[in-house]
Amino acid sequence: MTSTAHRPETARPDAAPVIDTAHSPHARLHPVALGRVQLTDTFLEPRRKINRDVTLPSQYRHLEDTGRLHNFRRIVDQTGEPFVGIYFNDSDVYKWLEAAAWTLAEAHDPALDGMVAEVARLIEGAQGENGYLNTYYTAEREDQRWSNLKDQHELYCAGHFIQAAVAHSRTTGSDQLLGVARRLADHIDAVFGPASQGKRELTDGHEEIEMALVELYRATHEARYLQLAEFLIDVRGYHKLGADDDSHVFNSAYYQDHLPIREMPKVVGHAVRMVYLTAGATDLYLETGETALLSAMQRLWTHMTTRQMYVSGGLGARYEGEAFGDDFELPNARAYTETCAAIGSMMWNARLLAATGEARYADLLEHTLYNAVLPGWSLDGETYFYQNPLSDEGQHRRKAWFGCACCPPNVARLMASLPGYVYSTGAKRGTERGIWVNLYAESEASIDVAGQSVNLSQRTRYPWDGQVELTVGTAANFTLHLRIPEWATGATLSVNGEAQPAPQPGSYAAIERDWQVDDQVSLTLPMAVRRVRSHPRVLENTGRVALLRGPLLYAFESVDNLDVALDDVRLPSESQPDTQELPDLLGGVVVLKMDGQHSPQLQGDLYGEELVGEDKEQGRVNLTAIPYYAWANREAGQLRVWLRE
Amino acid sequence: MTSTAHRPETARPDAAPVIDTAHSPHARLHPVALGRVQLTDTFLEPRRKINRDVTLPSQYRHLEDTGRLHNFRRIVDQTGEPFVGIYFNDSDVYKWLEAAAWTLAEAHDPALDGMVAEVARLIEGAQGENGYLNTYYTAEREDQRWSNLKDQHELYCAGHFIQAAVAHSRTTGSDQLLGVARRLADHIDAVFGPASQGKRELTDGHEEIEMALVELYRATHEARYLQLAEFLIDVRGYHKLGADDDSHVFNSAYYQDHLPIREMPKVVGHAVRMVYLTAGATDLYLETGETALLSAMQRLWTHMTTRQMYVSGGLGARYEGEAFGDDFELPNARAYTETCAAIGSMMWNARLLAATGEARYADLLEHTLYNAVLPGWSLDGETYFYQNPLSDEGQHRRKAWFGCACCPPNVARLMASLPGYVYSTGAKRGTERGIWVNLYAESEASIDVAGQSVNLSQRTRYPWDGQVELTVGTAANFTLHLRIPEWATGATLSVNGEAQPAPQPGSYAAIERDWQVDDQVSLTLPMAVRRVRSHPRVLENTGRVALLRGPLLYAFESVDNLDVALDDVRLPSESQPDTQELPDLLGGVVVLKMDGQHSPQLQGDLYGEELVGEDKEQGRVNLTAIPYYAWANREAGQLRVWLRE
Repeated sequence: MTSTAHRPETARPDAAPVIDTAHSPHARLHPVALGRVQLTDTFLEPRRKINRDVTLPSQYRHLEDTGRLHNFRRIVDQTGEPFVGIYFNDSDVYKWLEAAAWTLAEAHDPALDGMVAEVARLIEGAQGENGYLNTYYTAEREDQRWSNLKDQHELYCAGHFIQAAVAHSRTTGSDQLLGVARRLADHIDAVFGPASQGKRELTDGHEEIEMALVELYRATHEARYLQLAEFLIDVRGYHKLGADDDSHVFNSAYYQDHLPIREMPKVVGHAVRMVYLTAGATDLYLETGETALLSAMQRLWTHMTTRQMYVSGGLGARYEGEAFGDDFELPNARAYTETCAAIGSMMWNARLLAATGEARYADLLEHTLYNAVLPGWSLDGETYFYQNPLSDEGQHRRKAWFGCACCPPNVARLMASLPGYVYSTGAKRGTERGIWVNLYAESEASIDVAGQSVNLSQRTRYPWDGQVELTVGTAANFTLHLRIPEWATGATLSVNGEAQPAPQPGSYAAIERDWQVDDQVSLTLPMAVRRVRSHPRVLENTGRVALLRGPLLYAFESVDNLDVALDDVRLPSESQPDTQELPDLLGGVVVLKMDGQHSPQLQGDLYGEELVGEDKEQGRVNLTAIPYYAWANREAGQLRVWLRE
Repeated sequence: MTSTAHRPETARPDAAPVIDTAHSPHARLHPVALGRVQLTDTFLEPRRKINRDVTLPSQYRHLEDTGRLHNFRRIVDQTGEPFVGIYFNDSDVYKWLEAAAWTLAEAHDPALDGMVAEVARLIEGAQGENGYLNTYYTAEREDQRWSNLKDQHELYCAGHFIQAAVAHSRTTGSDQLLGVARRLADHIDAVFGPASQGKRELTDGHEEIEMALVELYRATHEARYLQLAEFLIDVRGYHKLGADDDSHVFNSAYYQDHLPIREMPKVVGHAVRMVYLTAGATDLYLETGETALLSAMQRLWTHMTTRQMYVSGGLGARYEGEAFGDDFELPNARAYTETCAAIGSMMWNARLLAATGEARYADLLEHTLYNAVLPGWSLDGETYFYQNPLSDEGQHRRKAWFGCACCPPNVARLMASLPGYVYSTGAKRGTERGIWVNLYAESEASIDVAGQSVNLSQRTRYPWDGQVELTVGTAANFTLHLRIPEWATGATLSVNGEAQPAPQPGSYAAIERDWQVDDQVSLTLPMAVRRVRSHPRVLENTGRVALLRGPLLYAFESVDNLDVALDDVRLPSESQPDTQELPDLLGGVVVLKMDGQHSPQLQGDLYGEELVGEDKEQGRVNLTAIPYYAWANREAGQLRVWLRE
């Protein structure tokens, strides 16, 4: 990557950033292209291998078996057959394509190449002369195009396609789909925009296209795409969408159309739409530098994290409307916490990190990955959660597919693009010379900084162990920024065995230096088990505690705690969990072992004057907690994240 | 009422039972006709006066203003205008008509007579030649009749009409609408039934018609109506309705079509539909005496009351699907607790009481009336709650009407028919000679028992005071049964000053005697304030307590407790509430006054290791609780039923 060429003449996987902020004037950090980072760890990379070997092929079969590819093929082959399935099913094909495209950055898999080529052929063939692309509204419903922006997700599908096309272009060097995306975006730009330009000034019902258009602008330098993104963001907030009755679930707030985004005090409505919108708005800020927009993003982020977020990082409390609830409304068993909302949160946090360089966004990105995205995907890579409850009686199990299958391919594209989130470089290349280490995972990276390609080697058993060893492979002067997670009180840092000042949790520790080959940086993140309690307004968690260790949230399942009902045990504050590494359990995990107090609760009527309290303590019981991401991969039973203290 | 004539030749208001079990072979008790009971109390009767003077006229205006009457008039007058509003809006007209009909039992109000006559004319005129009646499917949609029993509520509307027609017949003596109802029922009977009879063997999506058909059978002796009710109940449970995917909100359980009713272990799905179904099935039992059906009812009732019911008696935890949730899923702020579900519960309990004579059903009928129905209706009689939360921040306020306006006229018909629930007589007239006092409210009654019309006078300030004085006005030998509520530990009973054996809470105390004129029965129900706690599985109520006194649930509102945030106070167990009668507050209430402990909870982050606990105790605060039914009738603010203990 150089400062003069935005996109290489021939795209190469090693120049494929997930978010290409190279020319974004207001980016503090730039994600390092995923082709420049090779994960070699034993936690994330095995999951990515499953993504490549199991998830992507099985999802392709689902796309075939459920008619999602048929919907394109019937147009390309002019079969006259009808569209099948839900009107926004094209988006699943696009998300799968994006996942496959990022995957092509790392391995030339002929089978995957073949699937991608077929999907690309179908998409290209299904595009209309005028650039329109949506198989639901092609053939039988052409006269209804753009007739219901509120409900019909045409721009949402377009956004997912544009993202896929950009990924495809970046990792294959082919302009085939980028051209389709440009024609589609040009068509949309011709239809929608300010009324003063003779265009349709309408609000879209399901955000997603905003970040796609900004990325298309980054990929093409076509300013109209950025302006269109800005229009679609700015047009919101004037109650064009939603029921008149504010108490209706599908009110303006559901669609984030109740207030202009710069005035919104709170995250509201459909959780996935909300975080897709804020991700797009943050992308817009990275290009425009409008401080009012960044202030709004920070305000919304603070509201989300202090009033609306599960301890898992999951978002969206309500089944009704797949939506954010009232402040502090965070039921555990009925948590909606859609996997897609967690992925959207990661996307938003990645952009806030690029905009600010602040560690808290990388903290939440990591926390959300481990505790809100990974739980949505089975260890065998074949089944998925749509909702991710924090308490269960054994009835909530992952499924291979859904009628509304947004989550499965969203997981796939996130996992495929994951190396692109690990490292960043500083914004003002040439003046500021910095490498940011955002995520800890054993890896090899080759990072352009200070006019050089610097090799950096990371050795760690994170997230199981807090020891991280970084080896510089290239002599250069730059500043190495290491994220010190908010939880890492007592972290220590040394360079070539020489202790550095105590790093501050919740910030990036910076080491500026003339680095020499084989310089060694050692970071130690304390991995003590943390007992976490909730704000008192979270009513279900009164008197209860959750356990975390490092970046991982833990949970209790019946299968590990057969002797007791989980509601009948307490975790006294003096009970200190021990860790135990079990390489054969759940793909290899560190479990927590501890004593619990067996304190059965009186089980009387639903309400009564005498019924509550505890029987006399009935002795100690051995308890085992596993990482929450791994739950529901064995026999069904109770799940509890929060136990009585 | 005599044992030979089922319905008098000319119906009279004083012979108008709400549930006419006179000839039901399996009724243990018979409700005394509402025309035979005159409420003279200062609690219920003033609300009923508001129902007559304010609620019924204002609802009539809403029926006009929202086009609900227009939908009939356009057919009668052949205006060619389209139907307006929601497809089941006819049902609101019918429920209003039923309310007006019961009201005519007590007062000949010319204005109300006029409204009833107009509505009756419109309904009669809108009925088709073949008996069909539904304005949504008349004129523009005739070809779609009965095409979507799952969603379109045609039988639900028919059921509400039949109930209204029976009430109209019983209180006016007119057969005008009963004839319409018979023609409608005959039409339905010709269309639906066992396939073996060449009829359409379909399951209805929204129960209601079952109890209506049984009542029509009682009013007409036409056995086909009872058989049709039985068919509609028995056809359920074979997964004809609902999504294939059981995790879908609109699955078979949502429609109570997942299991035959005799096999159902749990109340499930849409709460109103569930209790309307069980009310109808209990009506069926009263006629058939099928023990399997009664067993199922008792099993479902036990499940409902021990796993699914709010402390208010409210039913239906989930907004999503207006449905019962999982066992113990009872969130306070997000309680759905539709007013209609509480009314349905009263109807079901009244029928279980008739079937068994067990006090627990009358207990719950009363508790539901005071704490789950009355909160749904403002003190001024003009606004309504659809949902009845037990915790609020001041945003949930009653509304004058709703697009889906099922609750307002349902409250009206319940209040209008209320005298019909106060007394019952024993089943085997001539052998068992009994009067049952189900509800305590100052009243005069004239009750046919032991071959005589016995006058009974009830003097009490219940629910504010537990002293009840009954005076017998007619010399006769009969057994007087007095309900001793489950909560009335320490109740005492005397006759003419002579102490009787200590009555057993949760049962009817029986006094058999040759009663003389002016014999005096004194019942004292202790009115100590009860501190109630929840089953430990109700997570939001952990460590919290609610207050009840007599039949009334109490609640705390900010307007009475301005000095503190309600979450920042505790109600220590040694704090003993005093009562204070405030005749000018909220129509006259007894409030509870007590000391609370000001214990602000630390308000830190959403989650943290150190943030929970209490600041040092900051002294006593004065707390005031009002009856929950009266909440949200003053300035908006916080509401809490459950306070920290």
